[in-house]
Amino acid sequence: MSGPIPPTPVLQAIHDRRSVRRFTDAAVSRDLILTALTAASWAPSGLNNQPWRFAVVRDQAIKEKLAGLTRYSAVLKSAPVLVPVFLDKDNSYDYVKDCQAVGACLQNFLLALHSLGLGAVWIGEILKNGDKVMEILELPGRLDLMAVVAVGYPEHSKQSSHRRPIEELILLDK
Amino acid sequence: MSGPIPPTPVLQAIHDRRSVRRFTDAAVSRDLILTALTAASWAPSGLNNQPWRFAVVRDQAIKEKLAGLTRYSAVLKSAPVLVPVFLDKDNSYDYVKDCQAVGACLQNFLLALHSLGLGAVWIGEILKNGDKVMEILELPGRLDLMAVVAVGYPEHSKQSSHRRPIEELILLDK
Repeated sequence: MSGPIPPTPVLQAIHDRRSVRRFTDAAVSRDLILTALTAASWAPSGLNNQPWRFAVVRDQAIKEKLAGLTRYSAVLKSAPVLVPVFLDKDNSYDYVKDCQAVGACLQNFLLALHSLGLGAVWIGEILKNGDKVMEILELPGRLDLMAVVAVGYPEHSKQSSHRRPIEELILLDK
Repeated sequence: MSGPIPPTPVLQAIHDRRSVRRFTDAAVSRDLILTALTAASWAPSGLNNQPWRFAVVRDQAIKEKLAGLTRYSAVLKSAPVLVPVFLDKDNSYDYVKDCQAVGACLQNFLLALHSLGLGAVWIGEILKNGDKVMEILELPGRLDLMAVVAVGYPEHSKQSSHRRPIEELILLDK
């Protein structure tokens, strides 16, 4: 963080979180996943409609089937837990705002996992095979796949990343 | 937070953050806004395309014009700072994933503001008048309004809120 504002733990976590694509073999407890999913669910949503839904997949056979649907197949296979995230169309009121809310929910999930010592990566590329994911998971058609998050303990220390300078992102200031 | 996992500062912030709709008259420093917007920009995005853009509005005349475009006009008038958030269509690669990324960015912004002692509310209802917002702000048509965030110091202590039990949100666990 630059500037005179001392970083809070939240700012530090936001800044330090990275996509983690290689995991150790260590199992991830159900309690940790539930804690992070509960945090995910505290995202804001339009009219508090909470359109997000989750699956938790540890089954090796299912993981391998899902891994066949993305170019990130090695990531999905190595992660001890996969969390497909859905929009529940029965609880949708505005598609764009619901997608934003699911994005907020995903960010809560990633930050919560990071704060618990876990690593994760948000995979959107698998959406090209959303229908096949739904068939494999045998979930109802009212669910729209929004992302798959691969979760585990990070194998390596964090990689670097970069962002545009904030001055480039602020287009009006008055 | 329930369960045996001790809450981290990040989990606590995610859980404690509320929409704030009434603000004191206290000014919000530019440094705080820049710090929170920098945190916002550390959201993940597909291919790291960083499609988010921001405006920072303190000008009373502009704020009042924007306030005329939403039913939450009292909120916009009372907030010392308004931050319209945009999707830059020139940096878009997939509309749904970009909307999710902007949602993640908005959540970072809200959490960062909360951790800095500020309050905020994410207003989506004004999107119905997105074109008029763009005219008032005189910003280029490549920007798609995604939300307006009203920011200030909270007037009241936090209100309660609720979420569905996590068991209702997990539709598959195996």
